[in-house]
Amino acid sequence: MTSHNPNLAIPHGSTLRLRRLGIDTHQEAVIYMRQDCHVCRSEGFSAQARIEARLGERTLIATLGRITSDLLAHGEAGLSETAWHRLAAREGDEIAVTHAPPVDSLRHVRGKIYGHRLDAGAAEQIVRDIVAGRYSDVELAALVAACGGKALDQGEILGLTRAMVAAGSRLDWGKRAIADKHSVGGLPGNRTTPIVVAIVAACGLTIPKTSSRAITSPAGTADTMETLAPVDLNIAAMRHVVEQEGGCIVWGGAVDLSPADDILIRVERALNLDSDGQMVASVLSKKIAAGATHLVLDLPVGATAKVRSPVDADALSETLSAVATASGVQVRILTTDGSQPVGRGIGPALEARDVVSVLRNEQDAPVSLRQRAVTLAGALLELLGQASQGGGATLADKAIRDGSAWRKFAAICAAQGGMREPPRAKFTQEIPATGRGQVTEIDNRLLARIAKLAGAPAAKEAGIELHCPLGTQVDTGQPLYTIHAAARGELAYALDFVRSHPGAIELEPKQ
Amino acid sequence: MTSHNPNLAIPHGSTLRLRRLGIDTHQEAVIYMRQDCHVCRSEGFSAQARIEARLGERTLIATLGRITSDLLAHGEAGLSETAWHRLAAREGDEIAVTHAPPVDSLRHVRGKIYGHRLDAGAAEQIVRDIVAGRYSDVELAALVAACGGKALDQGEILGLTRAMVAAGSRLDWGKRAIADKHSVGGLPGNRTTPIVVAIVAACGLTIPKTSSRAITSPAGTADTMETLAPVDLNIAAMRHVVEQEGGCIVWGGAVDLSPADDILIRVERALNLDSDGQMVASVLSKKIAAGATHLVLDLPVGATAKVRSPVDADALSETLSAVATASGVQVRILTTDGSQPVGRGIGPALEARDVVSVLRNEQDAPVSLRQRAVTLAGALLELLGQASQGGGATLADKAIRDGSAWRKFAAICAAQGGMREPPRAKFTQEIPATGRGQVTEIDNRLLARIAKLAGAPAAKEAGIELHCPLGTQVDTGQPLYTIHAAARGELAYALDFVRSHPGAIELEPKQ
Repeated sequence: MTSHNPNLAIPHGSTLRLRRLGIDTHQEAVIYMRQDCHVCRSEGFSAQARIEARLGERTLIATLGRITSDLLAHGEAGLSETAWHRLAAREGDEIAVTHAPPVDSLRHVRGKIYGHRLDAGAAEQIVRDIVAGRYSDVELAALVAACGGKALDQGEILGLTRAMVAAGSRLDWGKRAIADKHSVGGLPGNRTTPIVVAIVAACGLTIPKTSSRAITSPAGTADTMETLAPVDLNIAAMRHVVEQEGGCIVWGGAVDLSPADDILIRVERALNLDSDGQMVASVLSKKIAAGATHLVLDLPVGATAKVRSPVDADALSETLSAVATASGVQVRILTTDGSQPVGRGIGPALEARDVVSVLRNEQDAPVSLRQRAVTLAGALLELLGQASQGGGATLADKAIRDGSAWRKFAAICAAQGGMREPPRAKFTQEIPATGRGQVTEIDNRLLARIAKLAGAPAAKEAGIELHCPLGTQVDTGQPLYTIHAAARGELAYALDFVRSHPGAIELEPKQ
Repeated sequence: MTSHNPNLAIPHGSTLRLRRLGIDTHQEAVIYMRQDCHVCRSEGFSAQARIEARLGERTLIATLGRITSDLLAHGEAGLSETAWHRLAAREGDEIAVTHAPPVDSLRHVRGKIYGHRLDAGAAEQIVRDIVAGRYSDVELAALVAACGGKALDQGEILGLTRAMVAAGSRLDWGKRAIADKHSVGGLPGNRTTPIVVAIVAACGLTIPKTSSRAITSPAGTADTMETLAPVDLNIAAMRHVVEQEGGCIVWGGAVDLSPADDILIRVERALNLDSDGQMVASVLSKKIAAGATHLVLDLPVGATAKVRSPVDADALSETLSAVATASGVQVRILTTDGSQPVGRGIGPALEARDVVSVLRNEQDAPVSLRQRAVTLAGALLELLGQASQGGGATLADKAIRDGSAWRKFAAICAAQGGMREPPRAKFTQEIPATGRGQVTEIDNRLLARIAKLAGAPAAKEAGIELHCPLGTQVDTGQPLYTIHAAARGELAYALDFVRSHPGAIELEPKQ
């Protein structure tokens, strides 16, 4: 009965020595302790015990993971990688552990489950605790479920949005009008942002764009842009670029805008649950925190996109407009075709080539990407009064044709640290059509999966080059798409997957 | 860029060698894999990836934990202890890993979040998947939140109860009438079960009682009973005892009754959320699966008990009665005093001494425990027609006084493997009153915490002996309670906690 040997247990109030185990738990903070230490025992353990760890000035609440082996020596504790970074721990540091105090705002989550309204004060308290890392994953899941479906009315969504803005930094550009754009995700290759920024900045607007890296997709805008210029700028450097050029395209991760959003999105994704209310709070809180006053939203609708029907798009648009207006943001929402990827490339460097090709007004630039970017930029120009109603797209197109958008883009890249040439893949493989006919269906999700197996986004040059948009007539043996990879093994994974999942591109024989 | 070296990655469809890491994750199945293996990479990782692991005939769905250190060598995988046991793994076993197929029943959980009713078929599908281990903790939390508050109507609760019964074993005793009892938790020392079983079996009823071990409390009925006789009987052995003696008190863990309940309770506890609907399904599914036809429920009501007000008790009773009746179970619900612990002992052996003392009709047996047991047993005797209405308690009391209950208890212990003497603690310490006055308040939760720090339930002899029920007049220095421990270090933890949390027993100075 080792658990009764007092020498094996950790006396109350004493410290444990940290050992880095290198366990990454999807961002949940976990503290690993031997089962014979007294904290493990007094908790009874089965109810996910929450432990407060203190290292110097930093504290953190973590879920207890119990070690039943000799992975940890007596007197040692481990942390999940997230917890390790949040405490800025080093091997051998001494931490003090205690039972975590109860998190008071959880009663508002319980209240919501019991059908009470989430008032503005409650939302603020919840979001503050989430950002402070006081919610476990199961608690976050309960919150997401409680606020899911139609559980939040517009007033509650507004309160949640404001709470999410208040919990992070908020940028102030000292100007009356700040432009921004956002695409609701789900469409591979939909990389309009760098083009839109270049156009509207060339036309004299201010557009300080922060973008995200890929989380589950083969590329985020920040990943794509990074193949063309540095994106890892702090607020001061970002401000400098925007003052000089009127626009930027940087990674939002360094700027701490609406940090609660990142935490909630992770759990929403795990549950495959994002209700309109949560999506609206998520999108608008990021934009308001970034200082936006005028916002154009791209809402792709399609069977394998995030928004699947026009009815869903209408409901989402209505809520987005109402909450944006109440938050003092002017918004224009464009419902767009989400039935297939945009442009040719899927993956950071391949998408960057599409972007450059459109901006340089090249003859074979992908039409779908150019049209989309021009439409979105045009809407922004109209919304901010830079173009007459109906004249925005023409003005945007002119900025591409006369080279001003490309010059602006090059200047932004230079200001961000210098323009680069996107890398090219060493290994490529064409995937040929096994029959002849017309392309009638493209599965966005399967293509994204193949691009990721080929190495995207970690390998910037990896991904897919699509040769046959919907409606293309193909012959047997004609290449449907080309897989790009940085290593032979990664190409093999992707090919292996293609063999077992042949339905990415559907052909219908010619009548 | 190690992640692009194909030699470090695991080819699709190949196997990984298991290494036992000894990480206990509160019963969630987790599979640990190196971040450079292809499953980690193609998932993108941030959305809690779900992996299917196959070992021989057994399969399991687990959440992916990513190892960023050399905790695992190339080609190795680890499992959380729960996953290890469920796969019956041995060091070095080869497992095949693939992406887990989507769990179809999750759409019903999403449906419930979106306000749809949970019909019987959906409940059945959900419960089946839960029992098969296909739900992650965050998915379970979303379900618990979606079914929380007043989200389930009586029809839905009935459907859920039936689904939970159907997903496990169901005992059939081949008799018309099977008695059972249940206490809704939260009250330390409330160990009436062994006494009730002995009384009603002595009076000729059949009561095949399965009980649980402690999860977060200092003792479960199975822990207490184990200090008096073996409780770890399989169904055949249990049946033998019941056929011979009419009753038993065994651990329910070996009998697989309503296995979904154990899984859901763990998450409900972590969320501190148990709505009436979930509690009713939980209690009744266990009892129906155990073959009960007549059930007496003890519902302690008090500020630090589970049910906190008479209004809450009424609502819960109404739902319990309705669902029990619809399930063909006759039920009688007794609302009892939940303001203080029952009996003197808190902890397995100390509670067992109280039980024996009542059953032996000893003069100084704790009155509160005896009265409660007699009331509950009396209600059962009436419910099953063994006593006239109002005559049950008298009959039950007689069974104690004439020694028949004690003889029946001894016979049951003998049939279960032989009666034992509960162990006595080596280390004890009295906690004296620091002033004089009347005991006006007892905090059940603090006392339970102290008993656990003293070593209960792992150390069977550990716990608390309470000397002063509510209303007792005490003088300065008079012992309020005695802490029992098996080791000096454990006694020290408990004392340390008592010093920092002095409010377990409140005195009010005499006017």
